[in-house]
Amino acid sequence: MDYQSYFRSRLTDLRGEGNYRVFAELQRDCGGFPAARHYAADGARDVTIWCSNDYLGMGQHPKVLAAMHAALDRCGAGAGGTRNISGTTHDHVLLENELADLHGKQAALLFTSGYVSNWAALGTLASQIPGCIVFSDALNHASMIEGIRHSRAQKVIWKHNDLDDLEAKLAAAPADAPKLIAFESVYSMDGDIAPIAEICDLADRYGAMTYLDEVHAVGLYGPRGGGVAEQEGLMHRLTVIEGTLGKAFGVVGGYIAASAELCDFVRSFASGFIFTTALPPAVAAGAAASVRHLKESAAEREMQRQRVAELRARLDALGIPHLPNPSHIIPVMVGDPVKCKFISDTLMNEFGIYIQPINYPTVPKGTERLRITPSPVHSAADIDRLAEALGELWMRCQIARRPMAAQ
Amino acid sequence: MDYQSYFRSRLTDLRGEGNYRVFAELQRDCGGFPAARHYAADGARDVTIWCSNDYLGMGQHPKVLAAMHAALDRCGAGAGGTRNISGTTHDHVLLENELADLHGKQAALLFTSGYVSNWAALGTLASQIPGCIVFSDALNHASMIEGIRHSRAQKVIWKHNDLDDLEAKLAAAPADAPKLIAFESVYSMDGDIAPIAEICDLADRYGAMTYLDEVHAVGLYGPRGGGVAEQEGLMHRLTVIEGTLGKAFGVVGGYIAASAELCDFVRSFASGFIFTTALPPAVAAGAAASVRHLKESAAEREMQRQRVAELRARLDALGIPHLPNPSHIIPVMVGDPVKCKFISDTLMNEFGIYIQPINYPTVPKGTERLRITPSPVHSAADIDRLAEALGELWMRCQIARRPMAAQ
Ligand SMILES: Cc1ncc(COP(=O)(O)O)c(C=O)c1O
Ligand SMILES: Cc1ncc(COP(=O)(O)O)c(C=O)c1O
Repeated sequence: MDYQSYFRSRLTDLRGEGNYRVFAELQRDCGGFPAARHYAADGARDVTIWCSNDYLGMGQHPKVLAAMHAALDRCGAGAGGTRNISGTTHDHVLLENELADLHGKQAALLFTSGYVSNWAALGTLASQIPGCIVFSDALNHASMIEGIRHSRAQKVIWKHNDLDDLEAKLAAAPADAPKLIAFESVYSMDGDIAPIAEICDLADRYGAMTYLDEVHAVGLYGPRGGGVAEQEGLMHRLTVIEGTLGKAFGVVGGYIAASAELCDFVRSFASGFIFTTALPPAVAAGAAASVRHLKESAAEREMQRQRVAELRARLDALGIPHLPNPSHIIPVMVGDPVKCKFISDTLMNEFGIYIQPINYPTVPKGTERLRITPSPVHSAADIDRLAEALGELWMRCQIARRPMAAQ
Repeated sequence: MDYQSYFRSRLTDLRGEGNYRVFAELQRDCGGFPAARHYAADGARDVTIWCSNDYLGMGQHPKVLAAMHAALDRCGAGAGGTRNISGTTHDHVLLENELADLHGKQAALLFTSGYVSNWAALGTLASQIPGCIVFSDALNHASMIEGIRHSRAQKVIWKHNDLDDLEAKLAAAPADAPKLIAFESVYSMDGDIAPIAEICDLADRYGAMTYLDEVHAVGLYGPRGGGVAEQEGLMHRLTVIEGTLGKAFGVVGGYIAASAELCDFVRSFASGFIFTTALPPAVAAGAAASVRHLKESAAEREMQRQRVAELRARLDALGIPHLPNPSHIIPVMVGDPVKCKFISDTLMNEFGIYIQPINYPTVPKGTERLRITPSPVHSAADIDRLAEALGELWMRCQIARRPMAAQ
């Protein structure tokens, strides 16, 4: 087989479908973020980032940076080993304690990323509990899907956020089979939020464990940033809460929080936890500083909410369609992959505004969108510039505006 | 089902088998490494680490730390997004260029860890090339095994480093089936090295791609630290070279280096690459500084080799059995899990020396060992203390010494 030609032809197909991804090369301006440099083929330019998942700008928070600088000086760069072979540092242990406390759980377990935490924890739970059936929300993230797939456990997909469908499927399974319901709180592309309490009710009724991905909610919801489950007083009802340190907390890494036994079980059996170099101590220290800060400070969350409301109001005034939802994510619907890419390219090149187009397969065809994530570090002037640019482009693209009455 | 009792009983089983892992909590002393603090239940103590995979001490190299401090100040903590959505920074691109150059390949692709690079790259190649058969060395690392398993491609396991067995199995497969031979250069537990040239010969003969994990070799072998394949002038013959930034390079992260098309293919189809927050720019900058330094400087590699030879000579003089091999890894064979753990505990508690015991399932039963990794930052005095401690413990444990003649 001619492997090179095969790769080339598959890449050509991707290009033909409009699904070939081109990465924007950026340099974030620490202290000035959302400002960044964009390195394009024809030179570097200043841009404002409007699609980052550093939702609160914690990636440039002085406490986070100070903790990382200090840990670098104290411990050096890497951990130097897997968690079992010289790679567990004091900073890892402190961070795990901080995360257990954040979610009101006995324990927490760190992974190299949120992706790996989902893949490894779901993969281990579902494969190591004999006969376990996983009930997975239809819109679950790739990392959860791959973890469940990897486990080779029986998987039942229920309609997105549909309690009736979930209940029907739970009821149809053998009463004595071990069960695990896997879902997210904030779904990142539509920004909608799961009915967590009702899902926990069903879990109680059918003897299922619950596994909640709060990746797009930790740091952002709840009085201490514990996520939507904290906000709704539900943390104690969830078997596992999973989160990331790479989005609102501004660094990198992932974790689960759960009972001591569950964490110890995953720690002891998860290949993806065991056989990999631990996160650098400086990463752990920076993440711990971020978690600690957001436990005490609600200012970032409040300012973010304000910015989201301001931008939504501006879009409404311009008649630019955006998906309503109760979260911090503003999906501006374009509904056409070519227009979506065109708007994104023009925003970047003419207006110095960076919003990555979100096309199939990340979202269904016909729902192509610009996913905008306002943060407390976006200024009123940033919002003005974005609204003006979008208004002008919507005009140029002749995308049907929503009638003002329908707002 | 009572999930908590189930977890508890599985953990009790592990304890009964002697396979329950207790992590040593450490704080590396930047600048003083291999010195570290050990946080034990009864207080913190100074120890010398002898089992780190920061093989060259690059985790505390001034150039690495300076690059990381500077990148933190320049760009902040995290990347703030997946590679596709605002997470590709200038530092990622520079590092990928550095790595492609290191291995003489057209391109390189970064992952969050070596584990993820193996899992995602092998999983993608094996699943996306229809009918692909993977020929996997029997002692391949967990991350490769899981990637191949995840792909659901047909897998043929060949006897460790056994060319006859590999050839027989290649010959038995349909001539026109796509094939991928997956193996490592330095196997980390025994320290033996694969016959790379001969495996490439077989790959040519049977039309197979080659995938070489150089995780325990990059930075350490070859005039520029390109690994065993560089040392033997074979880099151009390998389809994919995979490596880590978390061991000899002293930071964290993983990568593949290959043709532009292959990297672009994996970039475009690998879930584990696409759907996860990119590494922090400071990590990328630190790793790039480390790779750059080790391209130019052979001093660390030479000093490491010297330290390895010195320690081996001391062990020989004491009649302490260690597995011969051509690499930098010294497996001191104990052959009993309880003794192995006892020696490790005593080294830590009485002598302030930390060497994690390696027991089943990481190595086969009866081959329990202390895996020692001398580095250029271990001093002659460190070696003295280690040799004396091991000598005394071997006496106490009455482990049969090798007759001096058999050395
Ligand atoms: C819902 C969800 N879960 C998990 C992840 C993975 O987290 P991380 O980026 O830390 O790997 C992501 C996105 O990256 C996500 O959107
Ligand atoms: C052979 C081999 N490949 C891959 C890995 C994973 O690399 P990383 O630690 O960067 O995840 C390891 C060890 O951790 C390994 O020993």
